[in-house]
Amino acid sequence: MPPPRFFCETPLAAGGRIELPAALAHHAQRVLRLADGTPIVLFDGLGGQYPAVLRIEGRRTLAELGAHAAIDCELRGQLVLIQGLASGDKMDWVVEKAVELGISELWPVAAERSVLRLSGPRLEKRLDHWRAIVRAASEQCGRNRLMVVHPPAPLAHCLDTVHGPALFCHPEGPLDFRMALDNVHDRLTLMVGPEGGWSPDELALAQRKGLIGTRFGPRVLRTETAGLALASAATVLLDW
Amino acid sequence: MPPPRFFCETPLAAGGRIELPAALAHHAQRVLRLADGTPIVLFDGLGGQYPAVLRIEGRRTLAELGAHAAIDCELRGQLVLIQGLASGDKMDWVVEKAVELGISELWPVAAERSVLRLSGPRLEKRLDHWRAIVRAASEQCGRNRLMVVHPPAPLAHCLDTVHGPALFCHPEGPLDFRMALDNVHDRLTLMVGPEGGWSPDELALAQRKGLIGTRFGPRVLRTETAGLALASAATVLLDW
Repeated sequence: MPPPRFFCETPLAAGGRIELPAALAHHAQRVLRLADGTPIVLFDGLGGQYPAVLRIEGRRTLAELGAHAAIDCELRGQLVLIQGLASGDKMDWVVEKAVELGISELWPVAAERSVLRLSGPRLEKRLDHWRAIVRAASEQCGRNRLMVVHPPAPLAHCLDTVHGPALFCHPEGPLDFRMALDNVHDRLTLMVGPEGGWSPDELALAQRKGLIGTRFGPRVLRTETAGLALASAATVLLDW
Repeated sequence: MPPPRFFCETPLAAGGRIELPAALAHHAQRVLRLADGTPIVLFDGLGGQYPAVLRIEGRRTLAELGAHAAIDCELRGQLVLIQGLASGDKMDWVVEKAVELGISELWPVAAERSVLRLSGPRLEKRLDHWRAIVRAASEQCGRNRLMVVHPPAPLAHCLDTVHGPALFCHPEGPLDFRMALDNVHDRLTLMVGPEGGWSPDELALAQRKGLIGTRFGPRVLRTETAGLALASAATVLLDW
């Protein structure tokens, strides 16, 4: 078994001896029941990781850090997912799987047909929740950089940030998915609608902004499946 | 909106007028509240579909079938997924997504490290549950043929049925995923371990049976992600 990996929110430095943040200490000591002297791996999201040794000294939980290892498990290109807000726990799933598949940025979009509506403290809480999923998924899958989860925004705002090639699925899209990747070099944006799909206004807006409709097989993919299927397909086709 | 699609367990024939099975009738009339005269689509899993009109006559729910439409949404090749039994609701997810992605056969495997153990009536019940998910997912995604879900079996039994190229993910596998597909023509088997992975014995068995270990990116994919990612990637690379 490889040593357990932990994201540490305080910046790390090679050879240091640090007290672990309370939540991390609790997780390592109480949940995983790791003993003094256990080899662990720490990363701070700034790239690379540190082999470390867990030290338990009375009520303090510390780590003795080794040398910085410049290991990252990132894709060769930047993959951005614009995801129409899905209901239930589907967004949790999309967030977790997006991390595993190497997506670099996730833009949840409050689409016209999104059933889930978030604002104020509920929005803040949900965003914190998604970002906690990002950290846990990164620990699990080996990524040392954190996928960025943007606060949910209307589509127009989100599309203003898009640069480089951007695709959305459409059964009558002009291009087959493989062909649609022809002009992609180091950045690709994928746009996936909520359960009810994008509204005609949203689709028209996306097209005005230069996004290209693409066909991805004859089957109708659910919102929580589409981004993952497109991301997996794009990364192998692009050899990322 | 396209007309609602229903799987009908009794074989259908063009131009017929049939009484709908009780569960289907209940779903159409009580759950979806479809009215007399609503256009629907019926399929029986034998290929193709029938446009139909819902008829409600007192307590009877009928359908008037149109001509057979030879529409299928199958992949061009046969994609088989051997899935180590995963716990919680993860298998449900894998089943649903496997249907959406066009997989033709699913073999749940009682792996050495599978936490979930099924036998007797519990096994039968779970198998029925998965097959109900297959029908619902087919209705939703447009497939007119049903993915086969085999009863859970030990790996050795399952591997005896494999023919044609078969791959499993391994971080030190000899072949990159793209290269591993070089000899695939019209059938591919993908083998995905349970949460704890395959045991050394199981991996040795798979290799003796001719399965090839392949690398799929540097990130560790969860059991419920791996099959879906591999299936999506394989189908675009093979142009299925």
